[in-house]
Amino acid sequence: MEIKDIIMGRRSIRLFEQKTLPDAEIRDLLDCARTSPCASNLQQLRFIVIQDFLLAKEIFQLTAWANLVKPHRNPQWGVSAPRCFIAVIADAQANPTIYADAGAAIQSMQIMAWSRGIGCCWLGSIKRDRIKAILELPEDKQVMYLLALGYPAESPLAEDIPIDKPVYYYLDDENRLHVPKICLDDVASWR
Amino acid sequence: MEIKDIIMGRRSIRLFEQKTLPDAEIRDLLDCARTSPCASNLQQLRFIVIQDFLLAKEIFQLTAWANLVKPHRNPQWGVSAPRCFIAVIADAQANPTIYADAGAAIQSMQIMAWSRGIGCCWLGSIKRDRIKAILELPEDKQVMYLLALGYPAESPLAEDIPIDKPVYYYLDDENRLHVPKICLDDVASWR
Repeated sequence: MEIKDIIMGRRSIRLFEQKTLPDAEIRDLLDCARTSPCASNLQQLRFIVIQDFLLAKEIFQLTAWANLVKPHRNPQWGVSAPRCFIAVIADAQANPTIYADAGAAIQSMQIMAWSRGIGCCWLGSIKRDRIKAILELPEDKQVMYLLALGYPAESPLAEDIPIDKPVYYYLDDENRLHVPKICLDDVASWR
Repeated sequence: MEIKDIIMGRRSIRLFEQKTLPDAEIRDLLDCARTSPCASNLQQLRFIVIQDFLLAKEIFQLTAWANLVKPHRNPQWGVSAPRCFIAVIADAQANPTIYADAGAAIQSMQIMAWSRGIGCCWLGSIKRDRIKAILELPEDKQVMYLLALGYPAESPLAEDIPIDKPVYYYLDDENRLHVPKICLDDVASWR
């Protein structure tokens, strides 16, 4: 697959096969995350891989999914839920630009994952304080995001739209998720 | 090249060949940026490609580079400076998580670029207000970052370090930039 097709074709996955990811694949994702660019090369992010069955279940229950198509992309534990998460951790007092570092690291992992047939969902709607307590993080740390991981059991589709059309994702009659993306000439200009 | 090697091998480039990038390559980068994940798929980022020779020169003069190895990675206009920039634009009042969107979009562009032999430098140390004025942005917009683009005229090298060693990048006797990256088992833990 050409790398442009991997990057453009990657979509968030919210329904997963109930298969375990090999540790070696997860290590490759973490290698991509840790070598991603970050402000002044300070490398302030940390990562916690959550694989334990009961712990993953507990974490899963503190996540929210795809608000616009509720409940059709709320995965069910033991049926379609991810069985692995990577928690992205930072200092609680970090500068807001830590979000840029996190975005780059997470996108590196997502592109790497997609190239191996692994799907991800970048979760920002999570109960951070409870996850922090479960993971027994020190007071001065925060959970920024979770990345849910697993083999895809859905195949969402992007479609180009002009900038005056709604960006809301939706399900078609066959339960396939469509993700509108604003066309190139409407998001970019040239000087 | 395997995609893991592209993602892990990509380094920030600060010395560039004085060759023009084809528009088609820049469009591919923008396609990767616009289809990157973003909070609620809202797609609030915009991109301005700066190619005009005099405008690029003016923008270049408002950028700062690699503070720790000054002045050895301050490219010189007409000799080693990038001849193209992509400005990443957002609403001035955007939520701080817009930084996460920007990080993901920029990393998509950087990975795509690297796979085509194009180097980038993600610039955060820039004179935002003056760039905003030069680009004639409306009051309610902000310049988040610049991505400098061009064909690499240096080949920086990452090296793994344990977490208790300094993360400062440095130049060796042959003027090659070394970029320490904290080893996997020191940034990640497993549960």
